[in-house]
Formats: sequence, C-alpha cells, structure tokens
Amino acid sequence: MSALLESIAKVRREVCELHAELTRYQLVVWTAGNVSGRVPGHDLMVIKPSGVSYDDLTPELMVVTDLYGTPVRGMNTGSAGTVDWGNPDLSPSSDTAAHAYVYRHMPEVGGVVHTHSTYATAWAARGEEIPCVLTMMGDEFGGSIPVGPFALIGDDSIGQGIVETLKGSNSPAVLMQNHGPFTIGKDARNAVKAAVMCEEVARTVHISRQLGEPLPIDPAKIESLFDRYQNVYGR
Amino acid sequence: MSALLESIAKVRREVCELHAELTRYQLVVWTAGNVSGRVPGHDLMVIKPSGVSYDDLTPELMVVTDLYGTPVRGMNTGSAGTVDWGNPDLSPSSDTAAHAYVYRHMPEVGGVVHTHSTYATAWAARGEEIPCVLTMMGDEFGGSIPVGPFALIGDDSIGQGIVETLKGSNSPAVLMQNHGPFTIGKDARNAVKAAVMCEEVARTVHISRQLGEPLPIDPAKIESLFDRYQNVYGR
Amino acid sequence: MSALLESIAKVRREVCELHAELTRYQLVVWTAGNVSGRVPGHDLMVIKPSGVSYDDLTPELMVVTDLYGTPVRGMNTGSAGTVDWGNPDLSPSSDTAAHAYVYRHMPEVGGVVHTHSTYATAWAARGEEIPCVLTMMGDEFGGSIPVGPFALIGDDSIGQGIVETLKGSNSPAVLMQNHGPFTIGKDARNAVKAAVMCEEVARTVHISRQLGEPLPIDPAKIESLFDRYQNVYGR
Amino acid sequence: MSALLESIAKVRREVCELHAELTRYQLVVWTAGNVSGRVPGHDLMVIKPSGVSYDDLTPELMVVTDLYGTPVRGMNTGSAGTVDWGNPDLSPSSDTAAHAYVYRHMPEVGGVVHTHSTYATAWAARGEEIPCVLTMMGDEFGGSIPVGPFALIGDDSIGQGIVETLKGSNSPAVLMQNHGPFTIGKDARNAVKAAVMCEEVARTVHISRQLGEPLPIDPAKIESLFDRYQNVYGR
Repeated sequence: MSALLESIAKVRREVCELHAELTRYQLVVWTAGNVSGRVPGHDLMVIKPSGVSYDDLTPELMVVTDLYGTPVRGMNTGSAGTVDWGNPDLSPSSDTAAHAYVYRHMPEVGGVVHTHSTYATAWAARGEEIPCVLTMMGDEFGGSIPVGPFALIGDDSIGQGIVETLKGSNSPAVLMQNHGPFTIGKDARNAVKAAVMCEEVARTVHISRQLGEPLPIDPAKIESLFDRYQNVYGR
Repeated sequence: MSALLESIAKVRREVCELHAELTRYQLVVWTAGNVSGRVPGHDLMVIKPSGVSYDDLTPELMVVTDLYGTPVRGMNTGSAGTVDWGNPDLSPSSDTAAHAYVYRHMPEVGGVVHTHSTYATAWAARGEEIPCVLTMMGDEFGGSIPVGPFALIGDDSIGQGIVETLKGSNSPAVLMQNHGPFTIGKDARNAVKAAVMCEEVARTVHISRQLGEPLPIDPAKIESLFDRYQNVYGR
Repeated sequence: MSALLESIAKVRREVCELHAELTRYQLVVWTAGNVSGRVPGHDLMVIKPSGVSYDDLTPELMVVTDLYGTPVRGMNTGSAGTVDWGNPDLSPSSDTAAHAYVYRHMPEVGGVVHTHSTYATAWAARGEEIPCVLTMMGDEFGGSIPVGPFALIGDDSIGQGIVETLKGSNSPAVLMQNHGPFTIGKDARNAVKAAVMCEEVARTVHISRQLGEPLPIDPAKIESLFDRYQNVYGR
Repeated sequence: MSALLESIAKVRREVCELHAELTRYQLVVWTAGNVSGRVPGHDLMVIKPSGVSYDDLTPELMVVTDLYGTPVRGMNTGSAGTVDWGNPDLSPSSDTAAHAYVYRHMPEVGGVVHTHSTYATAWAARGEEIPCVLTMMGDEFGGSIPVGPFALIGDDSIGQGIVETLKGSNSPAVLMQNHGPFTIGKDARNAVKAAVMCEEVARTVHISRQLGEPLPIDPAKIESLFDRYQNVYGR
C-alpha cells in the first residue's frame, strides 16, 4: 500500500472512532453531528457519510473528498481493502462544504467538528457569546466563545462565517447563530476535545447564570491561563 | 409463509427494535411510551403490548390489531413461529385507539410514536407551542411544533386532536396539552426520529429561553430549510 | 425448605434486583436510597443492608427484620444457602425504622422505597407539593404529591410523617420536607414504579414552571383518570 | 516485595479504580479531574498521570510522588511488575501541587479529589457557598459548602486556599472560585464519595432555588445530623 493510502486509512480510523466521543458525551442525537480530518500533506479530507447511524459507522464508510467536498474517485470503497471507483451508496455529510471551506482557508487546522450540542446551541439561538468566567475556559478557549453569523446551508456562507469569526479569536469554537457549534483543532482528536469542552463550559456558565451573575476573571489572568495551557499541551 | 405474514413479521421486528431508541435517548421511563407501525397495503398495525418492560420486548410480543385497535385473531402468537388464535396474556398498549385513529385518517402515515419525554411534555403542560428558532427545527419541523387540545383517554378524542392539529402543519410532531408528544412518519423509524428530534428541540429552545429570548428566524428562510431537507431525505 | 424460607428467598431476590431500577433511572447516588418488601403473611420485611454499593448487592446480603426493624436471628446468612444466627457484618439500612413503621401502620402496603432523587428532593426542600398538571400524574398519583413534615432520623418521627401524610391522599408518594421522597406500593415493584414516576413528574412539572405557569386540570378529570388507571392496573 | 511496595501497589489500584466513579457520576469530561491517595505512614502519594483518558488508566500508570509533587525515582514503572528509574512518558496530573499541599498541611487527610463537576462549578463561578437545606447535607457536610479564593495554577496558591477554607469548616468539600470543587477524605474512597455528594447537593439545591427559596434547617438540627452520621460512619 502506498504511503498516501496508509495515511488515508489512518485518518479513516481516527475520524470513525472519534464519533463515539460525540455520543459518549451526548453532544449529538440521531445522525446530527460530524467529525472530519485532513489527510496530512494532501488536499484531501475524510468525513462522516450522510445519514448513517453512529452505531453503524466503520472506517470504510468514511468518505474521502477533495477540499471542495467532492468525493474522490477510486478512494472510496464499499468494503475493507477494496479500492473501487467510488461508493455509489454513500455521500459525504451534508455539512461537508463548511468543513472543506475551513480546510482551504485555515492551513493550520487538521480537524473540524460540528454538533448541535444542547447548551452551546441554546447560546447560539440567542446569538450570545459565552463569557469566560471559568479557569477551564481560560485554559481551553483563552477568552469568550464567539458567535458567528446566521447562514443558510447550500453555499460557502457557513464556512465563511466560521473562518471569519475564528480568525480573530483564541477560541477553537464558534457558535453559529440559531444553528450550533463548529470546532477546530490541529487534528480531529483536538477538534473533538474542543467540542466536548465547548458544551461543558456552555452548560456550566448557563447554570451559573440561572441564579445570578458569575464573577468575571481579570483578562490578564485569562491570558496567563491560556498561555500556560497552550505551552504545556500545544494546540 | 405468505407475503402478508412475512410483512407482519418484518414490522414486528422493526417496531420492537425501535423501542430501544426511546430508552437510548431517555424519552421514556418504566413502560410510558410506545411505537407502532402500519402493515403496508393492509388495514393492520403492529404496536407495543401494554405494561411490558422495554427490556423484555420481543418481536413475538408485539400485538397486531386492525385499524380500530382490536387484536386480530390468529395473528398474535405466544412464541416465535406459532400462529394461534390470539395471545390471551397480552393486550395492546392503552394508547392504541389514538394510534389507530391516525392510521385511519392519515393514509400517508406509516408510523406513530407516543412518549412523555420531559421537555416536550413541559411545553405541553403550559399549552405552548415551540417556536422555530433553530435551523435544525426548520429542517425537521418546517416551523413551530403545535399544541393539540386537552383530551381524555377512552374514546377518539386524542386521535382527533392529533389529526386535526397535524393536518394544518408542516410538523410531524404535536404536543397534546397536559399530556405529551405524538409523532408521525412515513414509517415507524421516521416517527421515532421525529420523537427524538422533538425532545431535542424542546430541550434546546427551553434552555435558550431560560436566559433571554432566542432570535427569530425569517419565515422565508425556515421554508427554504424545510424544502431543501425534505427534498434530500423525503418524509 | 419451608414455605416461609422460600417466601423470604423470593422477596430477597425481588428487593435485591429492584435496586437496579434506582440506578438505571438515576434516582440515587453512592448508597443513598433503599428498597424494602414485606414477607407476605408474616410480620417480617426484607431491606437493603447499610453502606453496601449497589454493584455489590446480592439476594443473600439483604437483611430480614421484624416490623420494628430488628434483624431476625437465624434468617440472615453470610452466603447463599447458609442459615446462621445473623450476619454480624451487615446491619439494615439506616432508614429501616421508617420502612418498618409504614408496614406496621399500613397493612395494605407490601413495598416501600426511599430515595433523594434530585427533582423530588428539590420540591421537598421548598416544602412545596407538586401540583397535578399532567395526565400521567392523574393516572399514577390521582392528584398532587403531598409534602410531609420535617423530621429527624432516630425515632418514629419520619415513619409517622409518612403515614399521616399518605393516609389522606391518593398519592403513593410523599415528599418529606428538606429530605426526599418515600413511596409505597402493594409490593416492592410497585413502590419502585412510584419512585420512578414521582421523579419523572417532579422533573417535568419543575421544567414546565420555569417558563410560566402550567395549565391546571379540572379535578373531576383527574379523578376520572385515576379511577380508570387504577381499575386497569390495580394498586 | 517489601511492605512499602505492597502498600504502594494497593494505593495504585485504589486510586486507579476510583476514577471510574468520576465518570459513572459524570463529574468529569475528557481528562478534567483527578484522584490521589496518600501512602499510609510514608511521605508519598499516588495520583493520576496527566492527559491520559479515563478508559486507558491502569494501576501501573498511576504516578508516585513525594509530598512536593515530584515523581519518585525507581517507583514509577512502565509496565506491571517492572521497577525502573522513573517512567519518562508520564508526568503527574497538572493539579498535583494542590493535592501535595493538602497532604503536607492536613495529616489526617488520606485522599484528595478535584473535578469541575457542573453544578458545584456553577456555584463556584458565582463565588457563592451552598446553603445547608437538605438533611443529606447535614449528614455529609455538617453545614454549608464553603467557597475558597480565586487562585492561579503554578504555585501553592490553590493548595493554600483549599487548606485555609477547609480548616474552619465541617465540610470535606471546598468550591474554589471560578474553578471547581476539591474534596478530601480519610482515604481516596471517602474523598471520592465527598465529590459525588458535593455535586449531588449542588444540583439539588440549585434546582430547588430555581423556583423559590428552600426552607432553612435549624443549625442545632444540622449539628445533630452531622454528629450522628459521623459517629456511625466515621470520616
């Protein structure tokens, strides 16, 4: 097997397995969330197929596309080990265009995740950013989690909204208005971690605010938490 | 085995297995929720037996009734493969009359689900429809999720309330006042999907409104989301 | 084995297994909840041992006591099949006195359950009864779920509070103030069902009231729901 | 094997296994929480390694440090049974300094737990102590759960804040402001129990207060509950 095919097989396994973290942390119901990963060094990505239950995912069902979201002929197989000219039964996630736009415009990003996780989506429905009032948020997000514009599926509007919002922020998560969170990472695993932490802080800050106003954290201390955490773990 | 018996056996398996989705997504406690499916091309339906725990359900225990909810002699068996003159130990769900009424009056419906899922029922107790403030609601429900009338069990009041409310709506879900949600689909699987998504949006919109008012979505954009989604997946 | 020993063995198995419903529905954490069952026709009860994790419960570890909560010599065994003069390692649940008081004063009761389930306990902390605004509450509780007095552990105060409150109510559940729910049933299984349904309606009515006032149900209709349900299933 | 190595092996197993209680009760996501235990009679502690998933923990991966948080040469092994000069792949949890400070300054403490459990952290974000309005809180905490100061990671500030707050309180739990709970116990198991109960009462009191004010409990009765409970179970 060529180095490229080995690399694709590795990303297929990672992307497939990481969906189990979405269900474990109850970030998704039915088929409403997806993980993708860039194939390192190539203009290719691997993403969940559309409409397949999380229980039924296998590495072979993951779809390889170019960075415009078009499935690549000959790289999608019906079963393990077979290389055919595209699996006619599967199309990539309906959110593929947004993932692809991020990979084209943010070369440092190696993984993208989209969910409609409950608390993050509740903030998104009000179009309200999540203020940084937890040391854990300082560590992971380096400030508040920003809101992106309302955008309809069907063209590059969602991708543009994600990239424009994240370019000006420490945060690896953006809340797309009335829609839900998208997160990024240096690889798919880190993007999933950001999705998990985004819902966790969305829930905790929501619950804290139900009975009063959380205490702010001094911005210099947020910066200090973020710098320390990113130096220890990288991003 | 005749084609009819094969078809019934298939619906029995589907209806039985789909109850696992109700418990997986915590839409039900104890025995308080039920799935039914129409036998395609026949005036027959298959529904959960009354009072049996979800853990103990098997395809053979599902009850075949006519579209007035009466168990059909000779089609209900005590164990796999046996055809007797009705299983004397099992009666169909106490909600069977409501399911049957829907099948009689909505020929395009192939599956019905009833739960008391927490957040949907909380909206129902206030008699308040769920406003469409999430793109996911545009996709799945094409607008708000409507409220049906208060109705007592024992006659056709519940079934009538469901049918009258859903006939004037894009939504496959109705919140029966002080009671809980009923959902429909082209088959039992789609009705279960609607029940899962109904609770998901009921929860997310509830949580969003706890700390302010969600931003409305332009009705033309809701229509656009709904049209696109229904053309891709059908309903 | 004598009929009495067989009967005790059966109640031990039932009481042991029913604790799995408390954890399944997340009514308890750590060891903070317990189920008991009356031995039919005898002044004996079977209850969870104190301080044992739910994972480690076996029928043999359940403790047989008289109706004053005193372990019965010769009926508590260290391991399956052995009959010794009391298992010196295990004492009955610290809530045994309250269970025992209920059995002494309510001969129709065959099972008692105590939990600190979250939403029911939240109502109990405010000393506020749960209003009957759900058809499911009409079915199961026949009206509101009442509040019992504040009472300290150590004498018969808790048991008296339970009995006095339940004697004047349709409800099989009472919320002991600042403490948590106790439920009763004709047997242990029905008392567990009442504990599950009590938390379910406590949660649903709480959530409904967070965003407004639930619509009341006409008392005559509540009575009608309760009568119908009790005639179908008994209690 | 020497008595010391046997004792360390025992604490490794206990500390490792207790992390399963953090995930079971959903007190942690990803890798954001940790348990430690003192090695009885020695100036040594055992703690979770940094950045390892809960699914992947084994007793051998636990890190043995002195009471300043420095891994001990020769006591950390790469695999079961091997004793080498330190496992170069693993470092102790980034919260080790706080645990170590507690062991140095509270000799009666044998276990420490840190989580960011949702409801406890929500109170911590407001800097608000949890009032004692539940009999279960009287039993376990003997009063309110106090708040510790805002403190940054990197020196002894967090440890000092924990110790100063807990020294003046019956409570085995402290809510560090904008951060989350730390709990202590006579051993690791009791510290984990305190973490579980802390989240449980944080959630229940939060929910109770959402719809009104919980009824206070007379301080003399709280003291009576606490004394009784501690005499029965010790701490």
